[in-house]
Formats: sequence, C-alpha cells, structure tokens
Amino acid sequence: MKYVYYFGEGKKGMKDILGGKGLNLGVMTNIGIPVPPGFTITTQACKKINENNKWPEGLKKELDENIARLQEEMQQKLSDDNYPLLLSVRSGAAVSMPGMMDTVLNLGMNDKTVKVIANKTDNPRFAWDSYRRFIQMFGNVVMGIKHHYFEEVLDNVKETKGVKFDTELEIEDLKKVVKDYKKVVAEHAGKDFPQDPHKQLEMSIDAVFGSWDNKRAISYRRINNIKGLIGTAVNIQTMVFGNMGDDSGTGVLFTRNPANGEKEFYGEFLMNAQGEDVVAGIRTPKDIKKLKQINQDVYDELVEIYEKVEHYYKDMQDMEFTIQKGKLYILQTRTGKRTAQAAVKIAVDMVNEELIDKKQAILRIDPDQLDQLLHKQIDELAKKKHEVLAKGLPASPGAAVGEVVFDADTAFEWTKQGKDVVLVRVETSPEDIEGMNAAKGVLTARGGMTSHAAVVARGMGKCCVAGCGDIDIDYENSQFTVNNTIVQQGDYITLDGGTGELFKGRLPVKDPEVGGSFATIMKWADEFRKIGVRTNADIPRDAKVALEFGAEGIGLCRTEHMFFEGERIKHVRKMILADNETARKKALDNLLPYQKSDFKGLFEVMGEKPVVIRTLDPPLHEFLPKKEEDIELIAKEMQVSVEKIKASISDLHEFNPMLGHRGCRLGITYPEITAMQARAIVEAACEVSKENDLEVKAEIMIPLVGNVKELADQKKVVQNVIDNTLEKFDMDLHIMIGTMIEIPRAAITADEIAKQAEFFSFGTNDLTQMTCGFSRDDAGKFLKEYVQKGIYSRDPFQVLDQDGVGKIMTIAVEKGRKTNPKIELGICGEHGGEPSSVIFSHKIGLDYVSCSPYRVPIARLAAAHAVLKK
Amino acid sequence: MKYVYYFGEGKKGMKDILGGKGLNLGVMTNIGIPVPPGFTITTQACKKINENNKWPEGLKKELDENIARLQEEMQQKLSDDNYPLLLSVRSGAAVSMPGMMDTVLNLGMNDKTVKVIANKTDNPRFAWDSYRRFIQMFGNVVMGIKHHYFEEVLDNVKETKGVKFDTELEIEDLKKVVKDYKKVVAEHAGKDFPQDPHKQLEMSIDAVFGSWDNKRAISYRRINNIKGLIGTAVNIQTMVFGNMGDDSGTGVLFTRNPANGEKEFYGEFLMNAQGEDVVAGIRTPKDIKKLKQINQDVYDELVEIYEKVEHYYKDMQDMEFTIQKGKLYILQTRTGKRTAQAAVKIAVDMVNEELIDKKQAILRIDPDQLDQLLHKQIDELAKKKHEVLAKGLPASPGAAVGEVVFDADTAFEWTKQGKDVVLVRVETSPEDIEGMNAAKGVLTARGGMTSHAAVVARGMGKCCVAGCGDIDIDYENSQFTVNNTIVQQGDYITLDGGTGELFKGRLPVKDPEVGGSFATIMKWADEFRKIGVRTNADIPRDAKVALEFGAEGIGLCRTEHMFFEGERIKHVRKMILADNETARKKALDNLLPYQKSDFKGLFEVMGEKPVVIRTLDPPLHEFLPKKEEDIELIAKEMQVSVEKIKASISDLHEFNPMLGHRGCRLGITYPEITAMQARAIVEAACEVSKENDLEVKAEIMIPLVGNVKELADQKKVVQNVIDNTLEKFDMDLHIMIGTMIEIPRAAITADEIAKQAEFFSFGTNDLTQMTCGFSRDDAGKFLKEYVQKGIYSRDPFQVLDQDGVGKIMTIAVEKGRKTNPKIELGICGEHGGEPSSVIFSHKIGLDYVSCSPYRVPIARLAAAHAVLKK
Repeated sequence: MKYVYYFGEGKKGMKDILGGKGLNLGVMTNIGIPVPPGFTITTQACKKINENNKWPEGLKKELDENIARLQEEMQQKLSDDNYPLLLSVRSGAAVSMPGMMDTVLNLGMNDKTVKVIANKTDNPRFAWDSYRRFIQMFGNVVMGIKHHYFEEVLDNVKETKGVKFDTELEIEDLKKVVKDYKKVVAEHAGKDFPQDPHKQLEMSIDAVFGSWDNKRAISYRRINNIKGLIGTAVNIQTMVFGNMGDDSGTGVLFTRNPANGEKEFYGEFLMNAQGEDVVAGIRTPKDIKKLKQINQDVYDELVEIYEKVEHYYKDMQDMEFTIQKGKLYILQTRTGKRTAQAAVKIAVDMVNEELIDKKQAILRIDPDQLDQLLHKQIDELAKKKHEVLAKGLPASPGAAVGEVVFDADTAFEWTKQGKDVVLVRVETSPEDIEGMNAAKGVLTARGGMTSHAAVVARGMGKCCVAGCGDIDIDYENSQFTVNNTIVQQGDYITLDGGTGELFKGRLPVKDPEVGGSFATIMKWADEFRKIGVRTNADIPRDAKVALEFGAEGIGLCRTEHMFFEGERIKHVRKMILADNETARKKALDNLLPYQKSDFKGLFEVMGEKPVVIRTLDPPLHEFLPKKEEDIELIAKEMQVSVEKIKASISDLHEFNPMLGHRGCRLGITYPEITAMQARAIVEAACEVSKENDLEVKAEIMIPLVGNVKELADQKKVVQNVIDNTLEKFDMDLHIMIGTMIEIPRAAITADEIAKQAEFFSFGTNDLTQMTCGFSRDDAGKFLKEYVQKGIYSRDPFQVLDQDGVGKIMTIAVEKGRKTNPKIELGICGEHGGEPSSVIFSHKIGLDYVSCSPYRVPIARLAAAHAVLKK
Repeated sequence: MKYVYYFGEGKKGMKDILGGKGLNLGVMTNIGIPVPPGFTITTQACKKINENNKWPEGLKKELDENIARLQEEMQQKLSDDNYPLLLSVRSGAAVSMPGMMDTVLNLGMNDKTVKVIANKTDNPRFAWDSYRRFIQMFGNVVMGIKHHYFEEVLDNVKETKGVKFDTELEIEDLKKVVKDYKKVVAEHAGKDFPQDPHKQLEMSIDAVFGSWDNKRAISYRRINNIKGLIGTAVNIQTMVFGNMGDDSGTGVLFTRNPANGEKEFYGEFLMNAQGEDVVAGIRTPKDIKKLKQINQDVYDELVEIYEKVEHYYKDMQDMEFTIQKGKLYILQTRTGKRTAQAAVKIAVDMVNEELIDKKQAILRIDPDQLDQLLHKQIDELAKKKHEVLAKGLPASPGAAVGEVVFDADTAFEWTKQGKDVVLVRVETSPEDIEGMNAAKGVLTARGGMTSHAAVVARGMGKCCVAGCGDIDIDYENSQFTVNNTIVQQGDYITLDGGTGELFKGRLPVKDPEVGGSFATIMKWADEFRKIGVRTNADIPRDAKVALEFGAEGIGLCRTEHMFFEGERIKHVRKMILADNETARKKALDNLLPYQKSDFKGLFEVMGEKPVVIRTLDPPLHEFLPKKEEDIELIAKEMQVSVEKIKASISDLHEFNPMLGHRGCRLGITYPEITAMQARAIVEAACEVSKENDLEVKAEIMIPLVGNVKELADQKKVVQNVIDNTLEKFDMDLHIMIGTMIEIPRAAITADEIAKQAEFFSFGTNDLTQMTCGFSRDDAGKFLKEYVQKGIYSRDPFQVLDQDGVGKIMTIAVEKGRKTNPKIELGICGEHGGEPSSVIFSHKIGLDYVSCSPYRVPIARLAAAHAVLKK
C-alpha cells in the first residue's frame, strides 16, 4: 500500500484517502498553480497508526523518499547550514473540520537554523520570533504541555521589560523567551525539545494523526453527522513567509464577490505580513486591486491563476496566497462561502457563462440559506459595532426594530398611533395574536423553536426571538432586565430573528432582495421538482405573500386563528360557555358571517387553486378569558355570575391539553360547530365561484382523527351541509373531505381511514409529539441535551425524525394508497418548509408539502433538490 | 325455503335461524318435556320482511299449516265457540336481547272468546282482565298507540269507582275498560281493534319482526357488540294460565342454588297466579319444596324434568313453569345466571359428576366475574333496603365502610387511632398514598377508571369509587353534599367499588370466599394456560397477596411509589431541588439505603421468581410540595429561601407533563439517579441471594424509551453499576436489562431497540395515551360519549384497543423478535388483568402478562380461556 503522495501524484476521486486539502493542493500543482511543494500522508496511514500505535511497514521509507524529493525540488534541506527547509504539518480529512485537529508550523527550526534564517533573511527578529512560536506550538500540540506555562514565560519577560505587547519585544528578549521555553519543555515533558527536524517531523505527524480522535474532533463529527471516515490525511508542505520584508506579503481572494455575487476580482492583502495578520484586524488590509501598483507581475499572475482555478473547479473559490520575496505562492483554494444573494447570482451567472448547467446551479444553493433573502436583515457592519445584549433562539428570521411593549393590547394601540413596536412576553398565547400581528417582532423569555410565539411568527413571516432565558421580565413595572441592563417600555430594541440576537437601540436594517437571479433559480427549480408546494395561511394577506413566493394552493388554513379578532372572540366565548345547544347555536349563528367572510377573502385570493381548511382544532379553554376583567365582561354579557364563568373555565382545565378534548373530538361533542364551519366554507366557495365565474377548490379537513369512525361521524355532518348548501345555490362544486394524519393510531389504521377520506395531510407537529412522546411546549428542557448527546441528531420538531415519525408516515402512505389509490397526500406541519423533510416527503411519494409563506421558495428549491439529488 | 318450524322440527345448530328461545322450546319438546305447543318463524323470514316490507312467498301457507297442526294438537281453535285457542307471540334472536323487542300475549281474545273463556273457566274477572290487557298490549305494540292513552282510561274508571288498585276493579268495571280501550284504538290508530284472531296474529308477527330494527334494539346490539345476526325469530305458542284457580299456579326454578352453587332443587312458586306475580313481590312466593304438599304428582314431575333438562344441557338451568288446572307446562329454560361463587362451585361439581370436562368447566367461568370472589361484598339484602346516595365509576372492586375524612393525613391519624375511614377527595395525587393505604376505601369526585385514585386503589386491592360527579366537596367545612344531603367528616358511608354506589351509613359486608372450588379451577386453568402471569407490586405486602393469588413473578415494581413514605420524600425533594451534582448525589446517597431495603423486602418475598423493577418514571414536579407549609419546611431544611423553592417548582411546571421530562429522560439528564437505583437493586439482589442461598432474578426496566439511543445510554449506566457491584460482592447473578414499550416510536423501531434489550414490557397505559392521543386524566370528558356513539366499542384504557394499540404492539413484537429472537415479552399496563386483553396478549405471543395482585386469578383464568377458546 502506498502511504505518501507527492503533490500531483493523486487523482480525482482520491479525496477519501488524501483528504480535501491534500487533493486540492495536488490538483493545483497539476494545473500549474504555484503551490509550495509538499506531499500528503494518507488517511489509511492514519487509521493504521491509530489502531496499532505504530507506523505501518514502509511508511518511514516513503516519508524519507518524499522528503528527499522535496529537498531536491526546493534546493533546501532540513537543518541545512545554508538553505534550511521549513515545513508545515497540517491535517486534512475528506470532510472539512475547521480547527478541530492539530497543526504544526515552522517545523525545522532549531538552535542552528534560527541563526541561518536570521542571516539569510536579514531579519533576526523574524527568525527568533518564528523559533519561539514553533517551540510553543510543538510543545503544546506535540508534547502535550499546557499553554499557560508558555504564556507565563512570555508574561514574565514582558513584565521584566515593562512592555505590554509581544511586538514590543526585541531580539534579545525573544532569545530569552526561547531559552525559557526550552526549560518549560524539559520540565513538563520530561525530555528536551528535539533539535533534529526529522525527529520533529515524525513526532508532529503522530500528533496530527492522533488528533483525529481527540474529544473535540469526535464531538464535531457527531454533531455534524460526519460518518464513514477512516481518519485524517496529513499534509507536509514547504513553509513560505509573507513577512520577509517589503517584497513579501500575504492575502486572501475570492474569485467573485462573496457578498453580492458580482463577477469581480475580490480580496485583500497586506505586505510584509503573515496570514493571521490579514484576519486579525490589527492592520487594515488593502483592496486586492491595489496590488497592481505594488507588483504588476504578481498581480497579473494572480489574476491568471484565479481565473484558471475557478474555471477548473467551476465554482467561486476562496484562496490564500503568499508572496515570498517577490514570488507568488497559492497556499490553499476552496469553495468560497457566500451570502444567499451571492449564491443565487453566481449560480445563475455561471449557467449563463456555460460553466455549469441548471441542475448544478440549483444544487449549488442551500435551500435553508434562502431564508436570508426573504427577510429584512440587520446591516452586518452595524451589527459588528453593537454589543449583543442577549441571545435567544432564532425562532423566525428577519429583523425587527421597535419600541418595547409588554402586552398585546399596547402593541396594537401603539401601532395604531404609528409607532413601531416589539412585543416582549414571557410566552405568548392565542390571546396575543392581534398584538403579534401589529408588532414588528416578538421576543419571548420562554419556549422553543416550536412554541406558540415561534410558530405563529413564522406563519406571519414576522421576526421572532424565542426562549431568551437571559431576560427577566417584570410586567408590573413594564420593564425587563438583562444582567444589569434595564430596558423599559418605550425603549428601542432590535431583534435578529436569524441569529436570535437582541440589541439595545435601533440598528439599520436592509430590505430583502428577491431580484432577477432569485426568480430565475425559482423558475428552474419548478422545472425539475415533482412535489407540489402549498402554504399554510389563515388570512388573505398571508395567502397573497405566499402566492408571490410561488405557492400553488393553501395546504392549511387554521380557522381558529380568526377567532380572536375583534368582536368574534366574544361570540366564541359565548359558544363555549353556552350550557345548552340552543344558546350554542345562537353564538354560532353570530360567528357564521365572520367565518364566511374570512373564507371568501381567502378564496378570492386563491382563485381556482386548492384551499385546505381545517375545522376547529385547539382545546376550547384556549379561547377563554384569563384576566379578571375579561371574565367579568363575558359574565355580564351572558347575564350569568362571574362564579359560573369561573367554574366553567375550571371545568375545562386539562392536565394534558395536547391529548385532551380538541380536534375532531370537539366536533363530535358539538356537531353544530362543525356544521357552522362547513356552512361558512361552502357558502363562501359558492359565492366566490359565482361572483368571479370560477371554480373554487375547497378541501375540508378534519383534525386529530385517530379512528375512522371519528372521520365518518364528522364527514356525515359536513357532507350534509355541502349537499344542502349546493342545492340552495344550485351549484355542483366538488368539495373534498379529508383528514389530518397526526395521531399514531391514524397512521397505523390509515387503510381504514383512507376509505373515508379524499385526502390525508400529515400534521407532523402533533405526529412528532405523539410518536416520540414529546410535548412541544415542554421538550425544550431536555431535547437540547438529547441533541448534544446525539440521541436525536436534530430537534425532531425542526427536522423530521425520519427514522421514527418518518417510518410511521411511510406506513400511513402505503396503507392509505392501498385502499384508496387516488388519495391526495400532503404534509402541513412545520416540517413542510424544512429542506431535508421536503426531500423525505418527495421520497415517500406525497403530492405536496405545505409551509409558511416565507418558506415557500425554500420548499420549491428543496423539492427540486429531491429530484436532482437522486 | 322453509320459514316455519313446529317445535321439535328444528335441529341442533339451527340457533341462527330459530333463535335461542325457539331452539330450546323445540329441544325440550323433543326430549319429552311438556312445553305448550307452538312453532317458530325463522330469522330468515324476519330478514325478508324487513327488507321487502312484505311477506315472502310461501310464509302465509306455512303459517296456516302450522296453525292447523297446533289446533289439531290442542283440540282448540282460534275464535272457537267452545275451545278458543289463545297464543303468545314472542321474539327470540340467536343472542339473548332481554326486553329489547316486542311481545304480544293473550292473542285470540275478542268480544266472543272473552265470554267463552269466562264461562269455561268460571272466572269472568280473569277473562275480562285478560282481554283488556290484550287490547292494551296489542294497541301499543302492534298498532303503535301510546301507553298513556290506555292509562288514562284505566285511571278514569278507577277514579269514578273511587279505588286505587287495578285489582279492586270488578267485572263490570273491566268491561267498561274494554269498551273504552276499543275507542282509544279506533281514535288513535284510525281503525278498529281487529276481532279476527288470524288478523291479530299476522299483525303481531309483523310487529315483532319490525321491532328488530327499533332504536332500542339497535343500540343494544351496538353497545353489546352483537354483530352478524340477520334478525329475530318469532315464537308462536299456546297460552297457558297459572291463574285459573287453586289448581293452577306458576313458578321459577333453578337446577342448583344460583347464590352458592349447592346442588339442590331451588325455586319459588305461587298458586293461582301469573308469572309476573312471582317477580312483582306483591305476594310472597313459596319455596319450591312446599309444592310437594300441594300437588305431589306435579312436584315429582317437576323434579324429574329439571334433572332431565340439566342433564341434557349439562349446565345449571333457570326454568319457568305454569300449572294450568293441575297440568304442568314448562315455558322456558335457559342457562341460569349465578354468582361467581356459584359459578365456580357448579363448574367444579359438574366435572366431579362427569357432566362436563375441565376445559368446559374453565370456559364456564367469566374471568371478570371472579373479581366478586376476591373482595369484600356488601350484603345484597341490606343493599336493597338502602337508598343509593350517589353513583360514581366502579374504579376498584370491594366494599368499604368507614368514617369520612377529607385528607390523607387525617386518614392516617384516625386509622392509627383504630378507626375505619373512607378517604374522600376531589382527586388524589401521589402525596395521598399513605392516606389511601390507611383508608378502607377511596371516593373521588373527579377522574376516570384510570385516574390516579383508581390505579393506585386497584394496585392496593382497595375499594374505590371514582369520578362521582354528584358529590360536591367542601374541604373548608370538611363536608360534602349530594343533592341536599350533607355528609360531614366522621359520618359513616359505605362504598361499593364493584358498582360505584355510595351509601350513607354502615352496611353489612361479607368477606371474600376463595374456597376449595376456586383453588381447583385455578389449578386447572394453570394446566392449560401458556402465558405467564406476573403482578404489579411495589411493596412486600402486595407481592405476598399476589403470590397467594398465584403470581409467578413481579412484572412491574414502580420504584417511585416508595418515594413518598416517611422521611424519604424529604430526600427526594432535596435531590430534585439540588442545583448541582454534588448536592444531588448527597441526597441520592441518603435515599440509597431506603431503596435498597425496599428491594430486599421484595426479593425476600419473591425468592427466585423474576422481579422487574422500573427506574424512576414520573415527572419530578409530582414529588414537590404543594402546600405552603411543606414548601417552607423544605426551604428551611435546604437552607435556601422560600422564593427559590417556589421558583424551582415553577420551573418544573409543564404544559403536558405526560409528554414531558419524565421516564428515561430523567435518567439521561441525571444519570446519578439511575445509578443510585441500579445500585440499590443490585446490592439488594446480591445480599438477599447470599443470605438465603438462592438466585434472585432481578430485571431492570428503563421506562419511556422512544429511541434506541436512550436505552443504550441508560444501559451503559446500569451495566456499569452491575459490573462493579457484582465484582464487589464476588457474585455472578444475571441481572437483565430491558425497556418498556410505551411510546409509539419505540414500537415502530422495536427492531433497533431489541438489539439493546433483554426484554420488552408493553406499558399499554401510556402506549394507549400516545397511540390514540388521549390523556388518561382528561379523556373522561369525551370518551364516554365516544363509547356511546360506538367510535370505540369499549374504553381503550380499560379494554385494550386491539385495532389500534394492538396493531402497534403486533408490529413491535414482530420487529423485536426479528432482531432478538430470545427477547422476553410482557405487558404491565392496566390491561394485563383484563380478560380480552390477556387473550390478545396470548395471541400475539407475549411471554407473560402482569397485573395488580387482585387480578392475578382473573388473568390466569383468561389465559386458560385464550388457549381453550382457540
């Protein structure tokens, strides 16, 4: 077995054994890019060494041969009296694991070479500083000596000298540091720092290979779900220095603008500097275009190189270069990170430039990343200048700037007065809907990514930071405290819903940019995708947004979301608190016109696109007043005692409301509620169809069915209303009746249920709750730890648990199609807008996914990925 | 097709078309029992008539032929001038539906025959009363006239005459009644009462067939899950009368004593009376043995007949007879209802008498009925004399008499003082355990059959009436109110846990009778059954009871049930409220000796029988103090502020605790809890094994696993403790590690989980909650209606939902055995002691069921049924 590959010896497809970095260095070498020469020791060597605790047969010989070849090429030798060779030793696995494994630089430095280099470079300070850095790095990484021993030495020397920064030390000081460092090594490692560069090299190779199995790397692989790798490769490469004088320098470049995607030479550099100086921000790097004035040749070479490399990789590259005494070296190239906007523009441009095809362009864009494009963003520069006050969960993307208010009513009132407000609550409840709607953003102290606040805000496309445990809300004094900062009602705050950050004050915000390239990519995605994309929308405004984002229908309209608006809640409460059917029917009669006009609004926006409307779902107590004054009000209106209302409220209390009297269970107990809703839907469908000369496609969805007889019961009620209403209107619209599949029993008995249903829609939020036995409202307490421990690789409320919930969905799909091959299948849980879940939905053969309006483009793109990734 | 069968023409196996009654009358005729002659019209005729609304071809002709044969045999004719034939027309389906369908008696009466009969019997009062009864019955049943019209006539006549009872009316009055009845018929039916007996007969036949589809009968069939019948048969039989004078009489008899099963001639009779007189209780019937003195011949004939009939049917019979003018007729025989005690004794006796074999004996006993035998019972006679104060759910069988107390502490204190108490609570919580244990019985105002009170009481074998919504508890004044009755602390009440009845005062109570026959039946059941029977027991006392009842191991020991006793709860609370691992470990160290001694107690009782111990399951907040004084106490003990304790309590609050931080999720967050429990178990097992020179068989069960990685995590903790402890004790006990299957995801991924588990135990309570999406604590609100509407045929928390939960269990069994063929499978939910669920468990191949101690015999018998019913 061959363990060592000189740069260029490797071939495409050898990433597994050479690692990404090693392969790329070889590739560049092969296409004539000036890469500092070197070679790669394979991952197979890593595996053997880690397994057997010794070098495999032949590795030492190969290493020696490659060192010899390198010395020959460089005309330098390890520990040479005139031309000492210095090396870097870096890890590089097949999958990038930045910063997780060890690196050794300046290898080859010793008591002799430091002097040679001091002479050769005429820069003794550089030489001694490099030496002391090498000892420190080697001592720590290879010999396992704790950092602070070295720091103490450095601090002592600085203190003695009375200076503050390393850079203020002079050559003699550095020599003292080197001397003391060597003592530290001898003392703490129990042996001397090795002067022999061959020894240094072998020890470094062992250390880097060993770091594959350090704790940090193992947990990184677990968290990022990196599997199937046998180890890291090690790259041994000639050191080049950008800090050898004014004819030296270093920089980074992007082959296109990573912020906006423009096709331009983009980058920064510093002369007489090391790579870390460019990043550190102590000196301000210069625009790469200025390099032309300093060294036209190098500049031209760099331009030629970057074009060549991008053309080779057919993707935007992020490269590092060093100029050592006027000679250009490329140290690294990799696919460049970019903003969503840039990603979209680059992908479209590259198709136009015939570098890639549409399929590749689509696959280049991470659907999740699109979220950035679709919402307001805080200006990045401004963000850097502001301190983060606290951090919660990034519950709903976008940015919000406004005055703090602590209750929904104030949010509503202040907004009416023309103010921008951010609603801050411990947690939100359905009573807060109007206030949330009015506010620019929502901040909660409790609750997870699928808490009420998060779900509703995402549905509204409104920025939300949830579960921000660091804020301590004091409703009584209308203020909240973070550590020692007090924020009062009326103070401005800024939320970043994409990161979960909270800032005090008003930060500048950019509007979303859904330009031409975005539209192009979306159009291409639609050409490939097979699965439909609908939206979850309850009101016409949301439906309109979703249509603009390309929704092909409404997959879930939650009728109860309209129950809180204005006068309605009064009627809803009367309905719930009615103690006989007559009183209940009267309250329902009062609700009917509201519901009907809501549905008409939706149908008018959606035209002939399908609209799935779910009958009443939440437990009734959610609608009841909690505040004393509201209780008094409703008691007065209903002409009953406050005690009676309170008794009713207490009667409706449930220990586990999630598993209580809700969903179709309400409709079975009170068929008149279902009948009223059905009537509102069908009358609205008839009227809109007539008025606009079209055919509204309404689908009535019964929630929380676990037993086919529940569906049969509710279907009878609904069908009866449909028949009567169509007769009244003398129309023959087809109104579908179907059910949510959100209870495990429904999935398990889907063959029975499908006989009664024209469609299924997977309610994966509830299905996850019941299949996994997790309360979405409570699981925050342990799910985080579960994900950390790798019990679930991702939060199953965010990313569909394909191994469990997905399995039960698959059963339901198979059983459902078996008894009703024409059944329409969709998903309307939060997962409908999550890329991997969209791909799963495609795989198991669903007809559509439905998600919040702002995730429609994400779902469209993911749906195309589902086809193209196959 | 033959539609009419003369009694005796039918054959065994024709029950479906002749109905039970028709077949039996024919059988008796054939074996020479004097049955009033008659014939049966088949269920097939019923089906055709109900479908086509007309008589099928040929039926009329067959009817006429059979009437002719009957007239010939009786030497009587319909509407004959000298010997008029009177008939009864009765329904009789293949499955008994007592009182659900219609009956017509005295058919053949008309203006002419009434006079003939008056003369012939020399009893004009009898004749006219029979006639007026016939018109009323016929008018109501056949002609659909409401009862009250007839009642008004009768009331008027009585009023005019100034009498109170029907019996006070004289012949002339009855004639007036007959006249007015005929007017009522003419007025309300729009046609005259038919004088022609053939017309009467045909109309009656139609009416009885038609009653198959009345509302009452349909819902009876639905509720009793009677399926697959095509209709009822109709039996037309000669009327005989026991009220024709002192040489006539009527009675009922049992072939053995139905109360205690003694083999004796048992029954009652009345001379010159109708059947209803015996039942009505106006006259006191005489012991059947006295008949000897009145009519030796009839008595001897009756003895001969009853022995013959019992011998024929090989089961205790309940018979009705009439003596008409000295001639004995048997009107009916059917399998006699009996108490559990009688059922057991009769079954065993009949085996000894070689009437039946052991298998038949076992199948004769309804497992559910055994419950009666195993608990105290209120004396039935005493019950009849007391008014039922209120009725709740029969949550745990038995009887309890005691003074009312309203809190657990008082229950405990008063019991210590030697009083008998009944604990009355709105609902109970784990804090009440000690008080429940002390009380003779428990009464709650809220909660269903699987509420905390119900489950715990059943586990303790303690009488409990739950969810008694009619009682209004006023804790402040230590009293409860039912309607207007006030019951105060210290007042005596009596509970019947088998019926849910509540009585004021002290009713006499009988002890359970688990005599010789019971033991014999149990022994026989064990010979046949294949599935093991273990018990759910947390403390040695329960384990002992279960052992006496034949338990073969403990299938579920809930460790947390011991957490409330005495000092322990303090340590438990300290553990929960600890804010660091050190404090938590200290509290756990204090708990260890308690837990260990608990387990030693159990192991000592169980010897080498397996004992499954579940690690901590309930959410931690269940253990926290709720009362202000307890909060203050624990704050003081822990030397922290009351506010801090309250904050911790509020932090632990959950919206849906059932789906929250409980089960193995606790052990994963706090592995030290699992480790402490494992240590207590293993040390106890080692010590008991050593001290008693035996091998304790402990099985450690991890609850609420949904993902194999959860089990793997906890298994690692437990295995580590096992290894260390066994090493310490230098022993090599095998301690099994397994899991509950109670989350749908666990069932769906059972193949993965089985790789890590030595056993599965189906926790069907939680599995039902999550599979069906029902909170056991809340579902009472709608499940009753669900059962009424037939959505679920039985409450799925009481009787396993085989179509849903059962299906998911089947998946788990298949998947589990696939990857681990040796896996041990059991069930430990409440269903483990419910007969149909035991049979299901046998069918899907479980190794054992586990149930509360008092249900062990039921499970053993049901398990034998499972084999024998196959």
